[in-house]
Amino acid sequence: MSFGIDDLPVRDELRGKSPYGAPQLDVPVRLNTNENPYPLPEPLVERIAERVREAARDLNRYPDRDAVELRTQLAKYLTDTSGHEVGLANVWAANGSNEVIQQLLQTFGGPGRTAIGFEPSYSMHGLIARGTGTGWISGPRNEDFTIDVEAAARAIADARPDVVFVTTPNNPTGNAVPPETVLALYEAAQAAKPSMVVVDEAYVEFSHGDSLLPLIEGRPQLVISRTMSKAFGAAGLRLGYLAAHPAVVDAVQLVRLPYHLSAVTQATALAALEHTDTLLKYVEQLKAERDRLVSELRELGFQVVESDANFVQFGLFDDSHAAWQKILDRGVLVRDNGIPGWLRVSAGTPEENDAFLDAVRELKKELNA
Amino acid sequence: MSFGIDDLPVRDELRGKSPYGAPQLDVPVRLNTNENPYPLPEPLVERIAERVREAARDLNRYPDRDAVELRTQLAKYLTDTSGHEVGLANVWAANGSNEVIQQLLQTFGGPGRTAIGFEPSYSMHGLIARGTGTGWISGPRNEDFTIDVEAAARAIADARPDVVFVTTPNNPTGNAVPPETVLALYEAAQAAKPSMVVVDEAYVEFSHGDSLLPLIEGRPQLVISRTMSKAFGAAGLRLGYLAAHPAVVDAVQLVRLPYHLSAVTQATALAALEHTDTLLKYVEQLKAERDRLVSELRELGFQVVESDANFVQFGLFDDSHAAWQKILDRGVLVRDNGIPGWLRVSAGTPEENDAFLDAVRELKKELNA
Repeated sequence: MSFGIDDLPVRDELRGKSPYGAPQLDVPVRLNTNENPYPLPEPLVERIAERVREAARDLNRYPDRDAVELRTQLAKYLTDTSGHEVGLANVWAANGSNEVIQQLLQTFGGPGRTAIGFEPSYSMHGLIARGTGTGWISGPRNEDFTIDVEAAARAIADARPDVVFVTTPNNPTGNAVPPETVLALYEAAQAAKPSMVVVDEAYVEFSHGDSLLPLIEGRPQLVISRTMSKAFGAAGLRLGYLAAHPAVVDAVQLVRLPYHLSAVTQATALAALEHTDTLLKYVEQLKAERDRLVSELRELGFQVVESDANFVQFGLFDDSHAAWQKILDRGVLVRDNGIPGWLRVSAGTPEENDAFLDAVRELKKELNA
Repeated sequence: MSFGIDDLPVRDELRGKSPYGAPQLDVPVRLNTNENPYPLPEPLVERIAERVREAARDLNRYPDRDAVELRTQLAKYLTDTSGHEVGLANVWAANGSNEVIQQLLQTFGGPGRTAIGFEPSYSMHGLIARGTGTGWISGPRNEDFTIDVEAAARAIADARPDVVFVTTPNNPTGNAVPPETVLALYEAAQAAKPSMVVVDEAYVEFSHGDSLLPLIEGRPQLVISRTMSKAFGAAGLRLGYLAAHPAVVDAVQLVRLPYHLSAVTQATALAALEHTDTLLKYVEQLKAERDRLVSELRELGFQVVESDANFVQFGLFDDSHAAWQKILDRGVLVRDNGIPGWLRVSAGTPEENDAFLDAVRELKKELNA
């Protein structure tokens, strides 16, 4: 027997666990991780090379620890797209929204504290809770994947968590949470503790509705978490950010690792923000394709969750893993999130979506045969 | 009174704290954060732009989660420079050695566990311990900043920590820890618990001696932590890494955030590794300048700690903060690490070091007057 993880003095709760992450398989059509299928336009690629070249000339120096220029431009983007004015002091950025959430849990969660999410939802919330020693509470969700406000508020009142996660549009199910629900949960959270409410809006640019950003006004315990991975087509960049009351931005700086955001990350993100208008046009195309996936899947007789994201949850399958494998056999990789009966497909290019629809059409025939 | 951090439900241990970080002042000569004073050579700047341009064309996709190419090249660098063969399975990389250390503490420290360091040493070890809920124990160090093996081993036996930090060359004092001492502390740590021993070699390329990397052979609880910030002149890149038994690399993957290392970071680091030989020539120049600083400071009558790093700890001052200010008044920023009587200066270019030596020469006259 070779020496392995369990021979090391790792924390008890890590024993027998495996690392998080979707299989990275080499198949023709990858629709499993909600990536934006459109490569960055060539002028933006050139601008990134240019800004990184400039940053590289100063790479022997530490980066701007407070990422002032980047946070200013992110604030401008949020202001422009939401109509609600935010500034540098409202915005914080980190290496992916995962790191944003980790910093929030280190600040407001941690040992002896708890966080709640309404599951199924983005599974990293619970995993990052575990990684930061925060107790995790699995809150309820209806069978149609909407949130039952009364049941959710009761769960908050009972558990008195320190952090409440609301993912909207929800991942992996795709449905948005109405603003009234978020407000009701915020009230419940304040009555119970008071606790922080983190609204994870990673996919909000694909929504039929608006960002909940304006709700931070007068609600210092409300945090909006965002990312450049999806709408900006920059999953490889790892740039997440948050908008909140300035006190929240001050607070996470007590736990952030100094110089956590590299000079090349800051330069690349700034270049992408210069091309916001172009990138948001791709978002419009993806929204149309997402709507097409929803209606064609329904026409094929699948159950489909209403989607405000760049992906669609569909079913029902007696054996969703077998269905996943059959779709993969036809060269299309979708995601099995372990929700019995359901699979998730990311909106790709029209050609990729056609390939996916062909694959499920054949699958449907097989299942009906 | 405006709403501030303490009005939020932050963790008790964060109340009244301020964020870590040296003042980022705009002065002619910055010798306060142990940055490499030499900008990257222009061919490397071009190579970075080229590799990042290539990575940007695929930026809509998540980066290689396991950073296989980068870890392979880091392993090659370690093998070439230490003569001890390590491979992909021995190496892990993250956003700065701070993140490496955070992942190690999330895996082997955390709530209900403790870590020890021998202080004064790199203060982030204790801060990251706090951020991960790990209890921090301040271990002893001699007045001349060497480690008393017996006292240190006794502290380990008494406290039975889960993680032991040994920084060599030590920051901020500059002195290296002899291999026998590290081995004795490793034995003490195994006898006490067994616990993990993390040898922080951020500055080892500047050492008169060799890396302790070969010691990982047959010692699965020994971890060597390294960085590209100093020797590779890439503080702005935020690339730290570790070498250890493959089981350690497997274990930290249980806590790492998925896709933590961006595609642009991986591309930039790979470009820098292509230029290792050129960058190591700058290291030789800096070692010579460091030795000059040590001898000229001694000639001026200062006490100087023997240095194996790219910085020098010097004193003694009745009021080190006043001395820091007087040097700053002459346009040279050095570091006051809060160690009474001492200041730290990073080795800069010959011109920067001349400016620093002029400043302290005048200071000395003033103090003697």
